[in-house]
Amino acid sequence: MTVSTIPATTSTNLPPADARERVRELMMSIQDDFCQGLEQLDGEASFVEDAWERPGGGGGRTRVITDGGLFEQGGVNFSEVWGESLPPTILAQRPEAEGHNFYATGTSMVLHPRNPYIPTVHLNYRYFEAGPVWWFGGGADLTPYYPFAEDAAHFHQTFKDACDRHHPEFYPTFKLWCDEYFYLKHRQESRGIGGIFFDYQDGEGQLYRGPNPQGQAAAHSNQIGNRESMDWEAMFAFVKECGSAFLPAYLPIAEKRRSIESGDRERQFQLYRRGRYVEFNLVYDRGTVFGLQTNGRTESILMSLPPLVRWEYSYQPEPNTPEAQLYETFLKPQDWVNWNPHS
Amino acid sequence: MTVSTIPATTSTNLPPADARERVRELMMSIQDDFCQGLEQLDGEASFVEDAWERPGGGGGRTRVITDGGLFEQGGVNFSEVWGESLPPTILAQRPEAEGHNFYATGTSMVLHPRNPYIPTVHLNYRYFEAGPVWWFGGGADLTPYYPFAEDAAHFHQTFKDACDRHHPEFYPTFKLWCDEYFYLKHRQESRGIGGIFFDYQDGEGQLYRGPNPQGQAAAHSNQIGNRESMDWEAMFAFVKECGSAFLPAYLPIAEKRRSIESGDRERQFQLYRRGRYVEFNLVYDRGTVFGLQTNGRTESILMSLPPLVRWEYSYQPEPNTPEAQLYETFLKPQDWVNWNPHS
Repeated sequence: MTVSTIPATTSTNLPPADARERVRELMMSIQDDFCQGLEQLDGEASFVEDAWERPGGGGGRTRVITDGGLFEQGGVNFSEVWGESLPPTILAQRPEAEGHNFYATGTSMVLHPRNPYIPTVHLNYRYFEAGPVWWFGGGADLTPYYPFAEDAAHFHQTFKDACDRHHPEFYPTFKLWCDEYFYLKHRQESRGIGGIFFDYQDGEGQLYRGPNPQGQAAAHSNQIGNRESMDWEAMFAFVKECGSAFLPAYLPIAEKRRSIESGDRERQFQLYRRGRYVEFNLVYDRGTVFGLQTNGRTESILMSLPPLVRWEYSYQPEPNTPEAQLYETFLKPQDWVNWNPHS
Repeated sequence: MTVSTIPATTSTNLPPADARERVRELMMSIQDDFCQGLEQLDGEASFVEDAWERPGGGGGRTRVITDGGLFEQGGVNFSEVWGESLPPTILAQRPEAEGHNFYATGTSMVLHPRNPYIPTVHLNYRYFEAGPVWWFGGGADLTPYYPFAEDAAHFHQTFKDACDRHHPEFYPTFKLWCDEYFYLKHRQESRGIGGIFFDYQDGEGQLYRGPNPQGQAAAHSNQIGNRESMDWEAMFAFVKECGSAFLPAYLPIAEKRRSIESGDRERQFQLYRRGRYVEFNLVYDRGTVFGLQTNGRTESILMSLPPLVRWEYSYQPEPNTPEAQLYETFLKPQDWVNWNPHS
């Protein structure tokens, strides 16, 4: 994603000597915890691991679950890569990294449940170091098919609580950033009910967020005011807490909806809506498009695509149906934590 | 697609006064002829038409066939649009068009048969005028699932014959251009067995083709030598002939393969391979990506996507199967018109 150029991290805000090891351990333990929690939720299938090495430096472990009791397909990736230089799109945002080696580690996850009443969910956290600069990025967002406002509120509240324990401006900023990033301009639809998203977070007192990547006028300033700087340890603790928030955010929703019976109508709508996931990831998602165009590990990158997808010319939901309600309410940004079902 | 900047059409090579009308009529009659021929082939379903207007100027008629006897889904579009200025990506190739209104008309088609033994096929022809410049572009290409060399040879031979009647360098140049354009770099695969593709053809004596849009080293020079210039009438006649070549190129293949029985294995492979069509159109196809990002008519643009698609992590065809043969032979550029089954 394109963001405004960000001032370099000052020399008083350096990562500790063991920063890379500690973040790598965090990302791997997030992957482990998620896989364990998700296998327990699924009840039938287990994740299968592919360990891989990157010719340019580094590697990862891709874990995929298929044909489960709850998950039709899903994957949780860990990767750690290094190399001679960051791609131009990132260097444009972080010119201080020019001419330096880089290190990046992260975890990413997409889960496609079979039951159309259980939302698809995506999560990604990542850490970069390059010369004098370092930053964290990532987030988590939910994409329901047959949606429930209370589920949307629960998902957002869980991440808001995690954010609020670190800075009061995190949730409002990162919620908005998420709404703007996961937006399909050509459909004029949000991908789902959002969550949080952030990038280039180095603890500096200016909480930049990027301009909308699809070029809409920003709804608010790119800079939401100054605050005290947060050091590396504080940012690490924040990302760790975001990681811990995922299972409590998602498992209760999946458990609550797994027993709802659905038929062909719901299945067809789910397959149709999954097409939007494909459209977003292949047209807009910078990580996906960049990875594909620069010799990333294609199978790990495209693990995010749904197992079965349908396109239909000129589909429109019938008025006064649950499908119409998805379009009218849930595919538009909403203040979910303050959602009032009686308003 | 990105091509080298091309010299402006000289003033001695102007379109006739009724050029727009004549090309529009051609594109509409191509659409009509195709729909008639394809309905006859299908035997069960008919095309349904959506006429639409473009707020910025112009409009079109989108025709879709679904759930047919042979076609699972397909569409044949006609459009005619005009406006104040061409997009920057085109102006970069045609700087003479800067500051001029433009006019564009064309037809495009994608057909997804149900039987995995019948190939998916794509075709597009288009005409542009802007200030002092005009040009034709387009082509036709075939994407088989369970392939036959004789079908690939027939498809190529039909278009080669059409090309050869207008210039001996057309087919070799446009065949290569097609191989290079319809290539999935992240898979290291051709989309299918190719066909012909060209752009920015204004009849000038230099038969430019673009550099490979995905940045590979060009296998040959961008300019394949000088020849006598062709005037507007000659180029119009060439495109008309390309349009006429489609039904003879495709119908015999579809007729020959429609009675081959197939089961779940073939269906699953077809759905999986259709994923590559989606990946190409959303990641690489300049028309699709540009259309989506600039308020094109989304439903008409994405009509090209298959009705049902499957993704599977790390699929590999088993050795010595028809699926493996597709990968080994048909997803690599081949000299199909000189294909020797005994070599």
